[in-house]
Amino acid sequence: MLFEIDTPAVLVDLDIAEANIDRFQAYCTEHGLRNRPHIKTHKLPVLARRQIAAGAVGITCQKISEAEAMIAGGGIDDVLLTYNIVGAGKLAHLRALAQRVRLAVVADNPVVVAGLSEAFATVGNPLSVLVECDTGAHRCGVATAAAACELAMAIAKAPGLVFGGLMTYPPVGATAAVQDFMREAKALCERAGLVVPVITSGGAPDMWRAHEAPVVSEYRSGTYVYNDRSLVTRGVCTWADCALSVLATVVSTPEPGRAIVDAGTKVLTSDLLGLSGYGHVLGRPDLRVDQLSEEHGRITCDGVTGLAVGHRVRIVPNHACVVSNMVDAVVTIRGAKIEGPVPVAARGMVR
Amino acid sequence: MLFEIDTPAVLVDLDIAEANIDRFQAYCTEHGLRNRPHIKTHKLPVLARRQIAAGAVGITCQKISEAEAMIAGGGIDDVLLTYNIVGAGKLAHLRALAQRVRLAVVADNPVVVAGLSEAFATVGNPLSVLVECDTGAHRCGVATAAAACELAMAIAKAPGLVFGGLMTYPPVGATAAVQDFMREAKALCERAGLVVPVITSGGAPDMWRAHEAPVVSEYRSGTYVYNDRSLVTRGVCTWADCALSVLATVVSTPEPGRAIVDAGTKVLTSDLLGLSGYGHVLGRPDLRVDQLSEEHGRITCDGVTGLAVGHRVRIVPNHACVVSNMVDAVVTIRGAKIEGPVPVAARGMVR
Repeated sequence: MLFEIDTPAVLVDLDIAEANIDRFQAYCTEHGLRNRPHIKTHKLPVLARRQIAAGAVGITCQKISEAEAMIAGGGIDDVLLTYNIVGAGKLAHLRALAQRVRLAVVADNPVVVAGLSEAFATVGNPLSVLVECDTGAHRCGVATAAAACELAMAIAKAPGLVFGGLMTYPPVGATAAVQDFMREAKALCERAGLVVPVITSGGAPDMWRAHEAPVVSEYRSGTYVYNDRSLVTRGVCTWADCALSVLATVVSTPEPGRAIVDAGTKVLTSDLLGLSGYGHVLGRPDLRVDQLSEEHGRITCDGVTGLAVGHRVRIVPNHACVVSNMVDAVVTIRGAKIEGPVPVAARGMVR
Repeated sequence: MLFEIDTPAVLVDLDIAEANIDRFQAYCTEHGLRNRPHIKTHKLPVLARRQIAAGAVGITCQKISEAEAMIAGGGIDDVLLTYNIVGAGKLAHLRALAQRVRLAVVADNPVVVAGLSEAFATVGNPLSVLVECDTGAHRCGVATAAAACELAMAIAKAPGLVFGGLMTYPPVGATAAVQDFMREAKALCERAGLVVPVITSGGAPDMWRAHEAPVVSEYRSGTYVYNDRSLVTRGVCTWADCALSVLATVVSTPEPGRAIVDAGTKVLTSDLLGLSGYGHVLGRPDLRVDQLSEEHGRITCDGVTGLAVGHRVRIVPNHACVVSNMVDAVVTIRGAKIEGPVPVAARGMVR
């Protein structure tokens, strides 16, 4: 059956994805954590609804356009946008989105707060705004708990806005730093008379350690639904837990130790996430995907690949989320049974 | 005007692209080289037609689906597919494509030749098949001139096929190796009674040195139409020759020396091409695009960026081709004047 699919194709095993959804939901339930999956990994409304059916409180998006695509089919009514929204065009979309779902966004600076306030001052319901905190990733976020409290107070005073809590996207291994930062920021906010409704953290690599930062009340993981080579390498899951793989055909075998497949960066992407090589050939740990160009993937090994032109391989990518974004549709499967294709509704939503 | 465009957006300056097209065409004409641009860089029929109007003999594609998308609007009737075509589904599309345009493909092994022969044996016009040669890139290609000659003879004897010549995609700096390999392969083919109609090489980094391998009769470059940071770094062009850039908005400035923009790997991609960092901020050589995640680009410098939330920057990516593939449409401009958006017709054509 898989032999009938034209390649390269992105396969999603729904049995595995559903087991992943249920497993992490059970963890969150056990630890009293609100689970708010990041939909960037699958970009599929059907899987977001499955996550909510399993117990998730809502979804996380980074783009208004992704949120719009995800809610279009119904069944999703709670969205956290973990991104500073800037500019009149986006603010107009944000106002429209707030009419359709329970919406919250984040901010890490007064300019963004001022823009949000101006956009929502004349709207009936205020917008919930969380303060993004930098717990070591050095991307966005206020740098100190004092700065978090200061911005929280500015949000609370701004017309059209309510303070929604604290948000962070920590680097890997920073659970203790998250706990320290957030506990201090929460205390400062409460001392200033603010209620902190939610403290939300995220990241798949540390998802099974989320309970080690008990101040955190909500967790955002994206990749847990599919898993990938980066998470297997970190010991977060096994190859059997990887729901997404790229089906590719061998098109050339110039040497016994080298085969070329028809999946390159246009499907697997160049994301390394600190790894060497671009993917794992399922069932063949001896093989390396050692070089990609746009339409070619090079597989090498120390001995003989045993691959021949026309053979097919399944490659688990380094990073599943970015692969979903490369194709108009994924092919859903359950084991050897083909169910898909399913359009990737939120693919290519860059604005 | 550029301030009206929602970000991130991929801008293509047509004045610059047209000058790039004309400059390389003039070079090819001067040196008696057939110019066959690789359309992977722009994926836009309008620019392919402009390349042909300037003197190109046809286009190069790596995917049947890209070729189909490119010829749909008319005006393009000569396609070289530089890829081993494998599998019944693709061969059926290839037969249909051969009815619509003057078509040639490549092969580097007898299995591919057998598949092509079987598909075209019952077709009126034979398919032109070139032998792909490995001149040092160690991707696809036969390894020796003798093997090239052997495969050429197999093609010439195969029902439904004609031998179309020799093709290579050399590594950077291999002009001499191309000349040596191709001269020997051509001599062997001719000694065996074969005519070698075309010897085609390619690659943007060495495009201005194409004439140093005089045995080559045709050149395939893709990136020359837009140029990019990798080519500027190699001295192939200047920043002023870069037609494609990514317009991004600053959304956060957590430190004086750090700014976050709304363009991450979903637009710029993770392609490094051997470089450090992910792009060049036009007009600001002091800035580094030092880290990307999917929706965030981090800009740092040794001193103060001077950037503020809401400011806009234009980033020349490391690799222009892959950026075209990330968006449904590019915004065409001429200097400060906006012309687009133009749909990227051949985006996402992975099969």
